[in-house]
Amino acid sequence: MSSDQKGRFALQGLDRVMHERARLGILSCLAAVQSELTFGDLKDLCSLTDGNLSRHLHALEEEGIIRTRKEAGRGRALTWIGFTTPGRERFLDYVDLLESVLHDSQRALRRGASSTIRASEGVLPDIAGAS
Amino acid sequence: MSSDQKGRFALQGLDRVMHERARLGILSCLAAVQSELTFGDLKDLCSLTDGNLSRHLHALEEEGIIRTRKEAGRGRALTWIGFTTPGRERFLDYVDLLESVLHDSQRALRRGASSTIRASEGVLPDIAGAS
Repeated sequence: MSSDQKGRFALQGLDRVMHERARLGILSCLAAVQSELTFGDLKDLCSLTDGNLSRHLHALEEEGIIRTRKEAGRGRALTWIGFTTPGRERFLDYVDLLESVLHDSQRALRRGASSTIRASEGVLPDIAGAS
Repeated sequence: MSSDQKGRFALQGLDRVMHERARLGILSCLAAVQSELTFGDLKDLCSLTDGNLSRHLHALEEEGIIRTRKEAGRGRALTWIGFTTPGRERFLDYVDLLESVLHDSQRALRRGASSTIRASEGVLPDIAGAS
């Protein structure tokens, strides 16, 4: 194997904090609405329990990806959740990187459906996009 | 919130078995080479330890996503790893679903960079693609 292929699929740049499925849902939701959301709406849109949503929001807030703020209103205070500016950038970086990985896989899987290429011992077949 | 938006970002169709980062790396790698790979090559391409790769392969094999086979050769037997036919289909389903989620986020984030839309209490702003 050539040295430039080593670690090519380690996906080390893929942000683990945002990759967890429920968090990906939360962040996709905030991206889609392009705005802040209340705790209650976010909970419904992501089908999470209060406890689960709280835990994920706490982790994302600690990383500086989202911010929450309380708004006093009639009755109970509302909690609003939104991206921070760096958090939004960080999510876009994650999305861009993951998209490129998936795009390559999608192409290879579709192309490979009728292929019968077989690797022989010690020789890696061409990897799409490798130089 | 309209009832068709409830759970829209739960991402419940997103296959957890394949979503874990190291496994996504392993499966992307198998997709890219369109072939079987030896344990050693897969380990190098994914930058995993023997133990970690073994554990992930075991989980993926138990789910019927990949298969492994031993090939006797000079010295130690080689272990070859490849997709099963249903596993390959299942990975493509995962990739297609995740791609559509990411594509929506990417579009919204790029569009929203200059947007100042703000949700008002109890009213969800339009969500791209929602009917």
